[in-house]
Amino acid sequence: MKRETFRYRGDMDLDGFLREMERVGVLGAGRLGRAARILEKMWSSDDVTVLLTVAGPAVAGGLGELFERLIREGLVDAVITSGANVVHDALEALGGIHVCLGERNVDGYGRVHDTHIPTEAFEEFERFMREVLSDLSGRVSCRELLWEMGKRLESGFLRAAADEEVPIYSPGILDSMVGLHVWIHSQDHDFHLDLVDDMHHLADLVFEAEELGAIILGGSVPKHFAMGAAMLRGGLDYAVQITMDRPETGSLSGAPLEEGKSW
Amino acid sequence: MKRETFRYRGDMDLDGFLREMERVGVLGAGRLGRAARILEKMWSSDDVTVLLTVAGPAVAGGLGELFERLIREGLVDAVITSGANVVHDALEALGGIHVCLGERNVDGYGRVHDTHIPTEAFEEFERFMREVLSDLSGRVSCRELLWEMGKRLESGFLRAAADEEVPIYSPGILDSMVGLHVWIHSQDHDFHLDLVDDMHHLADLVFEAEELGAIILGGSVPKHFAMGAAMLRGGLDYAVQITMDRPETGSLSGAPLEEGKSW
Amino acid sequence: MKRETFRYRGDMDLDGFLREMERVGVLGAGRLGRAARILEKMWSSDDVTVLLTVAGPAVAGGLGELFERLIREGLVDAVITSGANVVHDALEALGGIHVCLGERNVDGYGRVHDTHIPTEAFEEFERFMREVLSDLSGRVSCRELLWEMGKRLESGFLRAAADEEVPIYSPGILDSMVGLHVWIHSQDHDFHLDLVDDMHHLADLVFEAEELGAIILGGSVPKHFAMGAAMLRGGLDYAVQITMDRPETGSLSGAPLEEGKSW
Amino acid sequence: MKRETFRYRGDMDLDGFLREMERVGVLGAGRLGRAARILEKMWSSDDVTVLLTVAGPAVAGGLGELFERLIREGLVDAVITSGANVVHDALEALGGIHVCLGERNVDGYGRVHDTHIPTEAFEEFERFMREVLSDLSGRVSCRELLWEMGKRLESGFLRAAADEEVPIYSPGILDSMVGLHVWIHSQDHDFHLDLVDDMHHLADLVFEAEELGAIILGGSVPKHFAMGAAMLRGGLDYAVQITMDRPETGSLSGAPLEEGKSW
Repeated sequence: MKRETFRYRGDMDLDGFLREMERVGVLGAGRLGRAARILEKMWSSDDVTVLLTVAGPAVAGGLGELFERLIREGLVDAVITSGANVVHDALEALGGIHVCLGERNVDGYGRVHDTHIPTEAFEEFERFMREVLSDLSGRVSCRELLWEMGKRLESGFLRAAADEEVPIYSPGILDSMVGLHVWIHSQDHDFHLDLVDDMHHLADLVFEAEELGAIILGGSVPKHFAMGAAMLRGGLDYAVQITMDRPETGSLSGAPLEEGKSW
Repeated sequence: MKRETFRYRGDMDLDGFLREMERVGVLGAGRLGRAARILEKMWSSDDVTVLLTVAGPAVAGGLGELFERLIREGLVDAVITSGANVVHDALEALGGIHVCLGERNVDGYGRVHDTHIPTEAFEEFERFMREVLSDLSGRVSCRELLWEMGKRLESGFLRAAADEEVPIYSPGILDSMVGLHVWIHSQDHDFHLDLVDDMHHLADLVFEAEELGAIILGGSVPKHFAMGAAMLRGGLDYAVQITMDRPETGSLSGAPLEEGKSW
Repeated sequence: MKRETFRYRGDMDLDGFLREMERVGVLGAGRLGRAARILEKMWSSDDVTVLLTVAGPAVAGGLGELFERLIREGLVDAVITSGANVVHDALEALGGIHVCLGERNVDGYGRVHDTHIPTEAFEEFERFMREVLSDLSGRVSCRELLWEMGKRLESGFLRAAADEEVPIYSPGILDSMVGLHVWIHSQDHDFHLDLVDDMHHLADLVFEAEELGAIILGGSVPKHFAMGAAMLRGGLDYAVQITMDRPETGSLSGAPLEEGKSW
Repeated sequence: MKRETFRYRGDMDLDGFLREMERVGVLGAGRLGRAARILEKMWSSDDVTVLLTVAGPAVAGGLGELFERLIREGLVDAVITSGANVVHDALEALGGIHVCLGERNVDGYGRVHDTHIPTEAFEEFERFMREVLSDLSGRVSCRELLWEMGKRLESGFLRAAADEEVPIYSPGILDSMVGLHVWIHSQDHDFHLDLVDDMHHLADLVFEAEELGAIILGGSVPKHFAMGAAMLRGGLDYAVQITMDRPETGSLSGAPLEEGKSW
C-alpha cells in the first residue's frame, strides 16, 4: 500500500480528517485511521455487542457527555469503568462543578492533575449515596446499584444507562468514594454489594453476542475485565484501544491486543 | 546542594551504588537515591506501618521471591496487589514454570509480554482453587481466602503471608482467575467473597499505625486503595513509588504523590 | 475557569473540534486547545516571525505537503529541520514512493518504523546530489545548498522554500544522506559546507523580528537551534511544541519551554 | 529458557545484581541482563572497536567521570556526543559547579531539568573558548578542536580524550555554546570548523575495525551518526542502547536497532 501525504483542507470535518489519517497510513496517523475504520465496521453491523471500557478520570477530564451520548444512541451495549468515573459523573449531575486551577493543590478542592472539584461537592455526594443505599437491601449487584444512582440523577452517563437499561460494570468500585459509602453503610445495614453477580451478567451478555467488540480507553481493571469475559467466547471480533501505557512493563494495560489471544 | 559526579568502583555493592546515586542527586540518579534514603528511614523505625502495593505482573516477571522475603523479614505489614500476582504466585508454588519464549504467542502457553506459562498449569490451579473453596463457606474476606490459599502452598508470598499473618488485600481480585473460580463456585455454593470486610480491616490497620508508609510498585487499584485508606488518617508519612505511568493522563496511576494530599 | 464537558457534533470541523478542546480546558484537551489558540494569535499578527522546527521523520510520515503549504502560505518564515526530512522530501519529489509494509525490514527497502522506500530511490537521489553539488563550489551555506536542491525539484517543501525564499536551516545535515554525498564530493572538489554562515543568517532574522514565535515539532537539534537563537533576543514571544520526549531525562528535547528562559 | 526468580542477597555487588537480572531473563530485568552480557563480550575481545554515543545532558547529570574512566581504561575507541556534554565537561573542568536547586528556574543559574550552573561559569567558558580559538586557524576538524580544548583542561573526558588520543566527534556541535563562540570568532578570523573532515576520520576508523560495537546512550544525532558510519561496513557487530525514546514516533532515536539493518 502506498503511503499518501496528508492534504489539509480548511473545511475538513472530523470524518474527513480521519480519512486523511487513514490515507497516510503510517505511524500515528495510520493507527488513528485504522482505529476509525474499525469503529465504523463495529458500528455498521447490528450483530456486534460493543463493550466500552473506561479507566482513569475520563469524566473529570470532560468526556461524560460523550459517554452519555454513546449510551443514548445505542453505540455501546455495556460499560466497564473505574469507580472514579462513576463518582465524577454523579458529582457533576448533583451540581458539582469541575474547575481548572492548574497543576497544583488548592485548599478546599480535590484535584485530578489540572482539574479541581470543591470538597463540598463530596458532602452532597455523601447525602446522595446515603439516600440511594437506604432504599436498597440484601445482595445488590454493582450494575443495580449504579442504575439506582442513575435513576436519581438528572443527567450524566449513569442516568443515560438507567434510562436505556445499559449495564454499567465497575469491578473495582469498592476502591472509590462509592466503595467508601458502601463500606460505611454496610457496617450497620443488611446490604451486600454482590460483584460476582455482575460476572454472571456480563458472561451471559458475552455468550449471547453474535459478534463482540470493545472500545478500550486506558487499561487497568476495565480492560482486563472485558478481555477476561471475551475469553469465554474465544476473544474479541473488533477492538480499538487508546492508551498511554507501555507494553514493555508487561502489564496488560499496555499490552497489544494479540497478547490476550494467548490466554 | 552540590551535584556530585558518579564515581564507579569495581567492588561497588548495591548499597554503595545507591549512595552514589544519592550523591549525584539529580535526574534519575537523584530520584533513585532519594527513594533509597526514604526506604532506609521507613525501615529503620519500628513505628512505621508499611503498605506494599503491587500492580501488574510483578510475580510473572520474577519478583515473587523478593515479596516473600519482604514479608518474612517483617519489612512490610500489609500487601495490596492485583489478582494477577496472586494467581502467578500460586501457579509457581503449584509447580508451574514460567519460561521465556520472546514477545510472541506460543500455542499451549499463556503469555505476559515475554514470559510464558503452560496452559496445563492453569488446570492444576483450577483443581487447587476448587479444593480451597470447598473448605470455605458463608462470607469470606479476600485476605482470609488468600491466607487459605497460602496455607496450602509450599512456597511463594501467599504462603509467607499466611505464616507471618501479614494481610494481603486484592480489591480487584474478581477480575482474575481467582475471581473466575470464585464466580463458578458461588453459583451453587453458599460462598460470598466479602471485599468490604477487607476495607474495615485495612481501615483499622491504618488507624492504629503510629506512622504510615507505602512502597508503591505500579499504579492502578492497589495504589489507589492504599492512598484512599491513607486519607482516613491524613495521608502517608513515607512513600516511594516506581511506575512507568505518566502524570499528564490525569490517572492516579501516574500522579505525583502530592496530588493525593488534595483529597 | 469552569471545565466544560466535550460536546460532539457530527458536523464538527477541525476548528470546531479544537475550540471544544479549549472549552474542556484540562488534560490533553486543554493542552491541545491552548496550542491552537497560541497558533491563532501567532498567525493573526504580521509582526511575528515564525520558526518551524521539525525533528524526526515527519516527511517520511506523510507531512511533507503540510510543510510545503505552511511555506507557500507565508505561515512560517524559516524552517529548521533534521537531514532526514530534507532527504525524504527530495526522494519523494524525485519520484520515490513511500509504501507501508508494516513494522518489519523488507529486502530492497529502507525502513522508517512502518514506512518503507525502495533502495533504488536512493540511487536516484545520489545522481541528483551529484548534479546539485557539481554546480556549486567554494563556501556554501546549508540554506543555499537546500535552495539549490529545491530549485531542481518539482514539488516538496524544498521547492516551496526555494520559490518563496524561505530559509531552511539544517544544522545536523552532515548526519544524513546529504551529508554523505557532501562528504564524498568534497574529497576531490573545492566545496565547503559553511554551517556557521547559517548561524549569522538566523541571528539576523531573529534580531530583526518584532516578535518571535516557534512551532516545535519533536525536539533534538532543530528545537535546540531555535531556542539558542531565541536567546539572542531574550526568548520566544509565542511557542507551541508537540513531542513524545519526556522532561525527566533532562534532555532539552522533552524540556518544558520555561526551562529555556533560564539560559 | 526457564524464567528464574530474582534472589536478593545483602552482599550483592553490581556484577552479581546484573547476573541475577540475566537469570530472571524477562521484562526490564532480561533486557538489562542481556545488555550487561553484550558489553561483557564487546569488552572481552581486543578486536572490537567500540563507539560510545552520548546524547542529552549526561555530563550535567553527573556522568562525566564515568566517560573519563571509559576513555582512560581503553573501553571506548571513539566518542560521539552532543555539544551540551562537551560544554558541561569544560564548565566543570574550569571550576564551574553544578548544583541541585529543584525543577525550577533560579536567577543567575542556567538550568537543565533539576541541575543548575551559575551563569558566571559561562563567562569563564567564554574566556576559555576565546583562548583556544585564538591558537587555531584555517580548517580545523571538530575532533581537533575538542582535543585542543581537552589539552587546556585539568580534568574531564575532553582531557582524557586528548591524553589517550581518543577522537571525540560532535556533528551537531554548532548547535551549542561551542558553536556560538566558533561563530563569533569566525566572523573576523580565518577559522573554518571542518565537520566533514570528521566524517573521513570516522569512516577510516570504521573501515579498519575488525569488529564494530556501539554503546548508545540516548538517541538523536550521536546515535544516527554512529549507525550511519556503521552502514559503511554492513552494520554493528555488538550494540547496547539505553533510551527513553519510543519506537512509535518513527524517529531513529527510539528505533530498535534492527531497523538500521534495513538501510
